Amino acid sequence: MNDTGSLDHLIEALRRLPGVGVKSAARMAFHLLQHDREGARVLAQALDAAVDRMGHCKLCHTFTEDEVCATCRDPRRDPGLLCVVETPADQAAVERTAAFRGRYFVLMGRISPLDGVGPNEIGVHQLLTRATDGLVHEVVMATNFTAEGEVTAHLLGTALRERGLKVTRLARGVPAGSELEYVDLSTIAHALVDRR
Amino acid sequence: MNDTGSLDHLIEALRRLPGVGVKSAARMAFHLLQHDREGARVLAQALDAAVDRMGHCKLCHTFTEDEVCATCRDPRRDPGLLCVVETPADQAAVERTAAFRGRYFVLMGRISPLDGVGPNEIGVHQLLTRATDGLVHEVVMATNFTAEGEVTAHLLGTALRERGLKVTRLARGVPAGSELEYVDLSTIAHALVDRR
Ligand SMILES: [Zn+2]
Ligand SMILES: [Zn+2]
Repeated sequence: MNDTGSLDHLIEALRRLPGVGVKSAARMAFHLLQHDREGARVLAQALDAAVDRMGHCKLCHTFTEDEVCATCRDPRRDPGLLCVVETPADQAAVERTAAFRGRYFVLMGRISPLDGVGPNEIGVHQLLTRATDGLVHEVVMATNFTAEGEVTAHLLGTALRERGLKVTRLARGVPAGSELEYVDLSTIAHALVDRR
Repeated sequence: MNDTGSLDHLIEALRRLPGVGVKSAARMAFHLLQHDREGARVLAQALDAAVDRMGHCKLCHTFTEDEVCATCRDPRRDPGLLCVVETPADQAAVERTAAFRGRYFVLMGRISPLDGVGPNEIGVHQLLTRATDGLVHEVVMATNFTAEGEVTAHLLGTALRERGLKVTRLARGVPAGSELEYVDLSTIAHALVDRR
């Protein structure tokens, strides 16, 4: 009797996207089937291609199709400065300021004890290995100014200082409680200059 | 230099979903690649399967994998009553009341002169053919109680009356300005009983 199985499956699959409930998923499915079947094909191919091709940079952990990402390969960047961010979106926010010319380590998450995410889950060992390459002399903690971002900065900063590294934090120019991705350029730029 | 082409394409493709801007698309892409690669595969397959299999019922126009949908094939339904709705989601809302045992015609849209959507774009000829099958004696207009839904009900109702059909409208129990999909069951049920 069920003649809409593939539509039901599509709605279910769309709900795996963050922030998409059952009503939005149904709207998306109807829209694609009614008005943009080509868009559905394009999205299906883009999903497969991204899963096939995107991996993580072995130096900084961000998404890349190569073994080492373009930023890590860029010879004009200062190898002595390492900026630690939570996500590629945060890295992009810092990059847009053009106020930082060092390299990055992307945690791909944040420490969140309540969710069972500890230092190991966000690659603390890889960060310590990366930061003790003999070239890095300062690590700029640019995690978000949220409770979880502060805990992350504190715990990672402590571990890095124990290994003799200078650890700085973006200045408090960034409004407390906010996420970097949504902060305007000049605020991030000032916070970089005033890092402590 | 661009080592994130497949990620960029995925973000672009996700923006074709209704209500998804560039920030949400990036969040969705990061989430899938970081935490739910299997979900990305499942979604890609679901999109392809739905586009391959879902067509429109030749009687009522709703989505179905068959030539004629399960509702139109159901012999227990009153062939004399035809309910006209804008979308499959609206049809589902009427169905949930269990107060209507006739059949449906799903416009898959609404008349919207400002957007260039006239009667032809929402299949007025198919509706007139469907409603004049000799069995239908009453058409219940259950388009939304928005400006566009009212225009649609008015224009289609006039055309149906000219062909000698009895045309009713859901009673005004449905709050003006609202969309059926978001109206509670009992309000729709009462509006069905009081149709005029
Ligand atoms: Zn890298
Ligand atoms: Zn049908």
